[in-house]
Amino acid sequence: MENPEKIQTYRTIIKQILNQHASYKPSHGEFEMQTLFDNEQDRYQVLAIGWNQDKRIYGCSMHLDIRAGKIWIQANNTEIDIAEALVAQGVPKEDIVIGLQPDYLRKYTGYAIA
Amino acid sequence: MENPEKIQTYRTIIKQILNQHASYKPSHGEFEMQTLFDNEQDRYQVLAIGWNQDKRIYGCSMHLDIRAGKIWIQANNTEIDIAEALVAQGVPKEDIVIGLQPDYLRKYTGYAIA
Repeated sequence: MENPEKIQTYRTIIKQILNQHASYKPSHGEFEMQTLFDNEQDRYQVLAIGWNQDKRIYGCSMHLDIRAGKIWIQANNTEIDIAEALVAQGVPKEDIVIGLQPDYLRKYTGYAIA
Repeated sequence: MENPEKIQTYRTIIKQILNQHASYKPSHGEFEMQTLFDNEQDRYQVLAIGWNQDKRIYGCSMHLDIRAGKIWIQANNTEIDIAEALVAQGVPKEDIVIGLQPDYLRKYTGYAIA
């Protein structure tokens, strides 16, 4: 059984990191940073959405899931090292999966494989 | 004031369209269709996530928001005409914003401008 308190702490940490990133104001273009938090399925995303002149901007900045008690980094298009940020918040490396890396590479990272 | 019953109906219609699309099994690659439903902020997305051999797959298929009583189509990378699907479900055109088109084009579509 997963520890529900641990999962609750992970949710708080994830939302904190994503909300902080979403609070940055883009330096140009008319776009906003949106959070998409699916609390039921434990899927959490930040995306940039809007316009740069006539060009549509739509892209995921960060996406983290919680699956079976572990945090999966599904996407990261920022300069932030999310895994490090999670460790700094007290998440053990064995509870972090770098989902955006192929699994044969994961064993070299010190983080979880799945 | 927005009609809360109308909004509730819109939520049901959006989730139906997105869930149906998410239920399609990709023909190749090891990826899944995920829904991300943010019920608090009324943001609804389907994304493809996984692997095609060693290549990471991560992309939004559909994204719809409800804002001020209207449905915004923020992204659509499918062959489905979402606006038409909404109209077929009884959503009036004036409640549909093709957010992925620049607003100077929206007046030619018969749908709402904002």
